[in-house]
Amino acid sequence: MGLTLAEKIIKEHLVTGDMKAGSEVGIRIDQTLTQDSTGTMAYLQFEAMGVDKVRTKRSVAYIDHNMLQSGPENADDHLYIQTVAKKHGIYFSKPGNGICHQVHLERFSVPGDTLLGSDSHTPTGGGMGMLAIGAGGLDVAVAMAGGEYNIPMPKIVNVELKGKLKSFTAAKDIILEVLKHFTVKGGVNKIFEYTGDGVAHLSVPERGTITNMGAELGATTSIFPSDERTLEFLKAQGREKDYRELKADEDAVYSEKLVIDLDTLEPNIALPHSPDAVVPVSTVRGKKLTQVAIGSCTNSSYVDLMKVASILDGKTVHEDVSLVVSPGSKQVLSMLAQNGALAKIIGAGARILESGCGPCIGMGQAPSNDGVSLRTFNRNFKGRCGTDSADVYLASPEVAAYSAVAGFIAGPEDFDMNVDLDIEMPKLFLVNDNMVVKPAEDGSSVEVKRGPNIKPFPKNTAMKDEVSGKALIKVMDDVTTDHIMPSNASLLPYRSNVPYLSEFCLTPLDKDFPRNAKENGGGFIVAGKNYGQGSSREHAALAPLYLGIKGVIAKSFARIHKANLINNGILPVTFKDEKDYDGVDKNDVLEINGLLENISTGTLTVQNVTKGTSFDVSVSLSEREAEIMAAGGLLNLMSMKNK
Amino acid sequence: MGLTLAEKIIKEHLVTGDMKAGSEVGIRIDQTLTQDSTGTMAYLQFEAMGVDKVRTKRSVAYIDHNMLQSGPENADDHLYIQTVAKKHGIYFSKPGNGICHQVHLERFSVPGDTLLGSDSHTPTGGGMGMLAIGAGGLDVAVAMAGGEYNIPMPKIVNVELKGKLKSFTAAKDIILEVLKHFTVKGGVNKIFEYTGDGVAHLSVPERGTITNMGAELGATTSIFPSDERTLEFLKAQGREKDYRELKADEDAVYSEKLVIDLDTLEPNIALPHSPDAVVPVSTVRGKKLTQVAIGSCTNSSYVDLMKVASILDGKTVHEDVSLVVSPGSKQVLSMLAQNGALAKIIGAGARILESGCGPCIGMGQAPSNDGVSLRTFNRNFKGRCGTDSADVYLASPEVAAYSAVAGFIAGPEDFDMNVDLDIEMPKLFLVNDNMVVKPAEDGSSVEVKRGPNIKPFPKNTAMKDEVSGKALIKVMDDVTTDHIMPSNASLLPYRSNVPYLSEFCLTPLDKDFPRNAKENGGGFIVAGKNYGQGSSREHAALAPLYLGIKGVIAKSFARIHKANLINNGILPVTFKDEKDYDGVDKNDVLEINGLLENISTGTLTVQNVTKGTSFDVSVSLSEREAEIMAAGGLLNLMSMKNK
Repeated sequence: MGLTLAEKIIKEHLVTGDMKAGSEVGIRIDQTLTQDSTGTMAYLQFEAMGVDKVRTKRSVAYIDHNMLQSGPENADDHLYIQTVAKKHGIYFSKPGNGICHQVHLERFSVPGDTLLGSDSHTPTGGGMGMLAIGAGGLDVAVAMAGGEYNIPMPKIVNVELKGKLKSFTAAKDIILEVLKHFTVKGGVNKIFEYTGDGVAHLSVPERGTITNMGAELGATTSIFPSDERTLEFLKAQGREKDYRELKADEDAVYSEKLVIDLDTLEPNIALPHSPDAVVPVSTVRGKKLTQVAIGSCTNSSYVDLMKVASILDGKTVHEDVSLVVSPGSKQVLSMLAQNGALAKIIGAGARILESGCGPCIGMGQAPSNDGVSLRTFNRNFKGRCGTDSADVYLASPEVAAYSAVAGFIAGPEDFDMNVDLDIEMPKLFLVNDNMVVKPAEDGSSVEVKRGPNIKPFPKNTAMKDEVSGKALIKVMDDVTTDHIMPSNASLLPYRSNVPYLSEFCLTPLDKDFPRNAKENGGGFIVAGKNYGQGSSREHAALAPLYLGIKGVIAKSFARIHKANLINNGILPVTFKDEKDYDGVDKNDVLEINGLLENISTGTLTVQNVTKGTSFDVSVSLSEREAEIMAAGGLLNLMSMKNK
Repeated sequence: MGLTLAEKIIKEHLVTGDMKAGSEVGIRIDQTLTQDSTGTMAYLQFEAMGVDKVRTKRSVAYIDHNMLQSGPENADDHLYIQTVAKKHGIYFSKPGNGICHQVHLERFSVPGDTLLGSDSHTPTGGGMGMLAIGAGGLDVAVAMAGGEYNIPMPKIVNVELKGKLKSFTAAKDIILEVLKHFTVKGGVNKIFEYTGDGVAHLSVPERGTITNMGAELGATTSIFPSDERTLEFLKAQGREKDYRELKADEDAVYSEKLVIDLDTLEPNIALPHSPDAVVPVSTVRGKKLTQVAIGSCTNSSYVDLMKVASILDGKTVHEDVSLVVSPGSKQVLSMLAQNGALAKIIGAGARILESGCGPCIGMGQAPSNDGVSLRTFNRNFKGRCGTDSADVYLASPEVAAYSAVAGFIAGPEDFDMNVDLDIEMPKLFLVNDNMVVKPAEDGSSVEVKRGPNIKPFPKNTAMKDEVSGKALIKVMDDVTTDHIMPSNASLLPYRSNVPYLSEFCLTPLDKDFPRNAKENGGGFIVAGKNYGQGSSREHAALAPLYLGIKGVIAKSFARIHKANLINNGILPVTFKDEKDYDGVDKNDVLEINGLLENISTGTLTVQNVTKGTSFDVSVSLSEREAEIMAAGGLLNLMSMKNK
């Protein structure tokens, strides 16, 4: 039985597990990328592992999210990332060099490699035939330290593209069609693999648009074969040597299949407030607009913007519309500035924003109240644009450009068929990597610069046979991670400062908890059912760790929070008999003995020293988790493995 | 006795007063400009005057300050300004079209005209031979309604420029030299008039750099003659018809004179944290930089950025430096994008920001903590950049560009004398005004769009013969406008929403004051000495007006706050005998009768109805102020005059 392309790459990189859908596989990671919003935490975690130099083939740190710099915090983060990267063998892409996914596709992506990125749109690299997956910062830190990445083996879905797009339909319309079919929930634990004769008509950046927005399916990733078009693109980037032909076997078996006929595909648009609320653009033609935004990691490539320039040439943006354009990379912006296309875009009355994520992540350009914005981006969740009352639509750059001139959502009848949208891919891109800072040959003398807000990552110690301490707090059922570690506008800038954040730990339930925990040198949390539900926030484990919390005794745990506790070496145990919850009071001194021996048996006994009673608790850990607990957390385990 | 150029223009526009230094003159205003940060309030005030159409020759509303749009408030403001402008005969420059002063110089400035702008750098127009003055929003609103602008007749200072700048010295070095000589306090109630053979070697934008930063002298304005260079510039802008030759009489008499020899002038730099802390750049050569910022209304013209492009061509910005460039206008950006210069700037690794004020006003690009930033801007006050701990230096674009490459403050020994900085002014600028929205021919059907945060301006009623009400609050000496109307990050976005702000009026002294005032239908404020000291904040009168405050009875007033109370029809009176302060208690009912008759005699009697006592108070108003009080505030007076 033949293999799909995804299966081939996974097989090549398999470290643990077997490739049966649903069972856990551990895969070797060739490349990593981070952006600045998740990057500071990922590098603090990497530093905590004590590894001198990344063990990947290539790791790149990008600055593309927090570029407005309304206070010193963003620039401090950039400086931390720049210096920590230089020290530890990581390439650093300066702010202004572009959006991580666009730049990575242009300059670093390699067919057949695995890429793990701390950004959900990392699958963009699938346009180059990479297995490119988005993950949390800790996963990326582990990968940089040489650890494998563990996921349930995904099902492989086939999307067959037939025929060729008309000049006014675009790659964006393909992925919107896929979203219409599968919905935002339809891709969980699946990889979408594109095949068919239509693939040959799509350039690498067009493929990147599709794999990028495949993230909206909830998919593990999406992937295209590596073929003649891939070679052309790599040649034009001066990277021919990175080419390798890759495709699925003829007799590969897929779990599902969708066929899309490109010849008959019409321009699509996603309605507010979900990327899968897709209809043909003609059905909403005429809707008045206040803003049009072109750019983002989905649609900001050279060809995308050349098409926009052709459409805007000699025209004027409608007086009621604010058109903002953010080119995807320095390469794209330079080429448009050199060949006159940018002058056409500016001439029509567009506002040119920096090469970065910008309005796509609500970093600026929030529309007016009740504004209507058409964007070439990948997400239109309510409020994401910065304005709760705004309606955001998603469409191709072509539809966006025509609409900006019209002042309303343009349908095919508004398109000027005389405009030549048949833009040739450049034979040679303008290559100038002078905004990428190379890591130091010897990082030992590089000083990592930490602004006042960047604090070392808290670290646990190896598990001891006995733990004891007070029950510092006793909480009810359904405590959320928002209770444990509040997150709001005033705390968000402190995401790299666990000591500061810990002063707010559990304060919605007990304002004295942080002081109490510190004064007692740590202790236990006693909780009801479903402890740690809600957001997957890692800080809800880090702040308790910083405050010396040794274990949480609960009726039950939310899944992700339990994993976060384990990753940080905090013992999560559940009452065998829920009635024992009633027998513990705040400030009771508790003791658990024989941890080393009994942790794998599944049962531990808690002594209530204050009351002279005892009760049994369950501990349920996989082999991997037991190993993490014993080491005092995943970072310690990685440090040990890397010594 | 001959006249200076400034005197000639004032004479041509004189409505009231005589031109004796220090005595008040009222001058007719030909043109106005607003920016968005002060503009919303100015247009709310203009609306409150009930004038259908502006009575100036030309009024322009620019959007250049609040362009980051982190929430809907900025876009709501833009939309309000756009629609109110369209309705009332005002040209609207869309966000992205550029910085008000740069665009006004290019497209609207006219030699010999008067220009009043609600921005302190309005004197930029002096580079075109305009009498261009910065003022408060209310003054600009009055001017739009046809009222004159009143100032003490300034002294006229002569700055004689001899010789010609060397290719690596710049207009910026001239104004820095003037600042070194006169300091930031040295220009109060003065106009700086530039003459000498050196003037002929300076282009209009270079002259604009000098008159722009003349604001830092505290001067009323600065002005250059209108000559052959002015004609050249106007021709190149397609505006030859606006030209008029203008210069001082040969025998004009100046109050002071400074001579600057351009042949020997060296590059200057202003040290942190004042624009007059000027030294030769060579004395601080070598200082390590983390940021270089090129742009602002001082230095973002076509020639400025062409020089930057020449210096950066083929170079790379130092890896430790973030270079940000914000071109001054769409015209400048388009031309650089068309002729390849922008590609050179991007190629070197600069970040291109929108055409707007941006980092100069702390709107983005705050340096890192302890960062060192070299900027081509006009102000380097501590914290203005967004980072309290940063050091900001001010210099020319040439010094900035060389420094960005070097990584430190570059001195003459770092300049590459082979770089051709002899940039010719274009014979024809690229003129495309499609980001300027013309006002409606008939504004009556234009609907003004007010976001939820834009509320009509509160307006008083004509003065009655009797006022009465409770003493709603009794406060101590030295109450500041920060007490009266707190201003902080959470209240700043509400500057166009007086009803909301009034809920915080005087709350630092009495948290129930707003509710109390509303429940009692307004009343009096009783205060000690120096009431209303501190910031000139107009809102400290508007919020009390909204809450129904009829008068303030104080031991004494701060000068500007008293004027603000009068402008809003709130009666400011002082105890004849300060001991009477002790005889009034909170909640006493007070009455003043015979206002219409006695307001001009200077003495009024206050009945304390609750206590059955009475005491005398003084009222000190000029004839103009008495007229304003009688009308119930300046806006009402303007409405009446305009009927």
